[in-house]
Amino acid sequence: MTILIRDCTAITLNDPLVRRGVSIAIEDGKITKISDDPKDFEHKKFDTIIDGTGKLALPGFVNAHTHLPMVLLRGYSDDRNLQEWLEHDIWPAERKLTEDDVYWASLLGIAEMLRSGTTTFCDMYFFMDAVAQAVKESGMRAVLSYGIIAPQPGEKAQKELSVTEKFLKDWHNRAEGRIRVAVGPHAPYTCCDEIWRDARALAFEYNTFIHTHLQETLAEVNDSLRVHQKSPTERLEALGVFEAPTVAAHGVHLRDSDVAMLARRRVGLAHCPTSNLKLGSGIAPVNTYRQMGLRVGIGTDGAASNNNLDMLEELRLAALLAKRDDPTALPAPEALKMATIESAYALGLEGTGHLAEGAEADIILVDMSGAHWQPGHNPVSDLVYAAQASDVETVLVAGQIVMKDKEILSFDEERAKAKVRALSAKYRKG
Amino acid sequence: MTILIRDCTAITLNDPLVRRGVSIAIEDGKITKISDDPKDFEHKKFDTIIDGTGKLALPGFVNAHTHLPMVLLRGYSDDRNLQEWLEHDIWPAERKLTEDDVYWASLLGIAEMLRSGTTTFCDMYFFMDAVAQAVKESGMRAVLSYGIIAPQPGEKAQKELSVTEKFLKDWHNRAEGRIRVAVGPHAPYTCCDEIWRDARALAFEYNTFIHTHLQETLAEVNDSLRVHQKSPTERLEALGVFEAPTVAAHGVHLRDSDVAMLARRRVGLAHCPTSNLKLGSGIAPVNTYRQMGLRVGIGTDGAASNNNLDMLEELRLAALLAKRDDPTALPAPEALKMATIESAYALGLEGTGHLAEGAEADIILVDMSGAHWQPGHNPVSDLVYAAQASDVETVLVAGQIVMKDKEILSFDEERAKAKVRALSAKYRKG
Repeated sequence: MTILIRDCTAITLNDPLVRRGVSIAIEDGKITKISDDPKDFEHKKFDTIIDGTGKLALPGFVNAHTHLPMVLLRGYSDDRNLQEWLEHDIWPAERKLTEDDVYWASLLGIAEMLRSGTTTFCDMYFFMDAVAQAVKESGMRAVLSYGIIAPQPGEKAQKELSVTEKFLKDWHNRAEGRIRVAVGPHAPYTCCDEIWRDARALAFEYNTFIHTHLQETLAEVNDSLRVHQKSPTERLEALGVFEAPTVAAHGVHLRDSDVAMLARRRVGLAHCPTSNLKLGSGIAPVNTYRQMGLRVGIGTDGAASNNNLDMLEELRLAALLAKRDDPTALPAPEALKMATIESAYALGLEGTGHLAEGAEADIILVDMSGAHWQPGHNPVSDLVYAAQASDVETVLVAGQIVMKDKEILSFDEERAKAKVRALSAKYRKG
Repeated sequence: MTILIRDCTAITLNDPLVRRGVSIAIEDGKITKISDDPKDFEHKKFDTIIDGTGKLALPGFVNAHTHLPMVLLRGYSDDRNLQEWLEHDIWPAERKLTEDDVYWASLLGIAEMLRSGTTTFCDMYFFMDAVAQAVKESGMRAVLSYGIIAPQPGEKAQKELSVTEKFLKDWHNRAEGRIRVAVGPHAPYTCCDEIWRDARALAFEYNTFIHTHLQETLAEVNDSLRVHQKSPTERLEALGVFEAPTVAAHGVHLRDSDVAMLARRRVGLAHCPTSNLKLGSGIAPVNTYRQMGLRVGIGTDGAASNNNLDMLEELRLAALLAKRDDPTALPAPEALKMATIESAYALGLEGTGHLAEGAEADIILVDMSGAHWQPGHNPVSDLVYAAQASDVETVLVAGQIVMKDKEILSFDEERAKAKVRALSAKYRKG
């Protein structure tokens, strides 16, 4: 399958950042040529030609942290304290979840992500076989992890690990390489030392990385200091966890020494600003973290605490929040990097998150004709500060056209919507 | 002209907040009936029937503060310090503006606002006749003010007032009552005491209100304390300004005594969270202000500092920011009120911003079928936390259908876009 995207404006995320009037050739899932010289393409015959006139081409967004099936609980409970929200609303609802629910919710969530320009996501949930099946069918790229909850060592904890190992065996590097499996100890406060050591060993054995939550709330940090005499970061470092590649979500409350330690270990942070605000956790000072050398990507978190999976909204919020006392902080190109190339690097996916010859053909085409894009002084600024998710028209993942002119081609979106609406009835309260 | 919106879900902004399966009858620009009983409508013949199935009906958003023609400078300069941004980029560009530029930019801005569900806006700029003309032609509702800059008393200052008075005479209560004119002294730091007293007198004479900026930055407050030994709020109170109805933009840095004074005088605050973040001004603690009795609406500010006119994005940001240390702060219905009924009240437009029999028929219909609206546990939550501007399908202002199924009917949007693209060439730097 060969594709030519003709005459677009490209945001490469490389140097130069913006290239006007270029065409992009795609073969066997990879970008083979980016050039503004028509001669570079005239000797080739392409299976499909996409007109890029008036369109912006850029790498698909990389959502560095989410819980995809939680779209089932979008709008189910809002505006409550975290513990009440979890104990009264979310956990009781999650106990009713079936594998079938997770499958259909995953397809729905993937539809929402494709429509808003995301081509890769990093997930943590349960019934992960169903999530993987949805990823396989949809043509999406994903890093998937089963969320291990094991506060005490013993048989139950080992069972969590064996679920993870089976998931690794069944799905790691499958679906033409679009699926990777990570090891997912849920958080320092929900996993005992034994599990952390075993998780590290599994990550090494399967040549993959660890995906966890870290220092989301101040209470978490203070509890750890009281119980372990270490911050969660210090505790994981002492257990050797960060010797394995790691991506950690949130990091709202990192002390300077934590940031330095994470940067030295090249841990990737998944910044989730909407969820952090909505749950009252605070604002992660990511501009400072980046200046201290930490690699920071962007994630939406789950739709129960966001309540959408819109990476454009997320990177805009990151850019705006960073400016609250310094308008020069996190300029538009930097925010865009966080949501693409830096998220990809945090997940160990060096081949995606940028447009270059040899890179994965994970590309989105964005319509610049809307009123809110005029007059068009600066496409990067317009994308970061003015665009809407619905401006995304066409999406390629691994060189396959999964959405064309706002129609999802790889699966039946309307069926997924109808299924999720029907399934959601049992989650209604009262 | 009579219209029936049949079988929609209505968010009334009154009690009950949400009414399912209702129809809304409109006659002579007003809502005449809202009912879930088909019998209430069967004896009537309507000129137009709109199918509301699967749609959310709510009052159009009321943008309490903007500078509409600045869409011309969207993306022109970003990520700079406020003074550099103004002195090096914005002011030199504004000096090139013509009345024709302002007219076409206003039409473009109105297209963007209608597409994102705004039916009323409160503006401050210059060449205001051109803005008024665009409002008249487009069917929009607006409160318009000429921005008076007069730091010194004298002839130049009086000329600014005479421009305002002419604008009042020409346009106040015109365009079938859709246009009101307010008196617009730009800010305490750009207007001398004499002008403030005269502005107050003009507001009384024409039975209108004052629209200004107030305490946007900490520097403004400190400068005023140094020069006048009063905060800007205290200074305007001492000048009697707040005896006239007043709407003030920003208020990022209000002291408790300022808030109490503004609340007692029933001054309306226009909260502009995106602009305040982007220019590094900070985060206005509007949840606290509201608890202290201040009426707070929401505005986008101009597109040079936002960079769009999307009120849905703005009310979502307001809701999220208020939660940064308390997830129960500013629940979804309250954020929605700020962007509709509270903005309307702040502008003295009691007839709009809510759905009720007798109210103005300023109504938007929002499509709830998108993936990001599923499964639909709570339409208010879905609107506030998950929806996109592009979900707005149909817009009525004063009982006229100005946008139907995403097509603007009242003027030629494509022509406005093309004109603005052509005009913008002269603003290109370098």
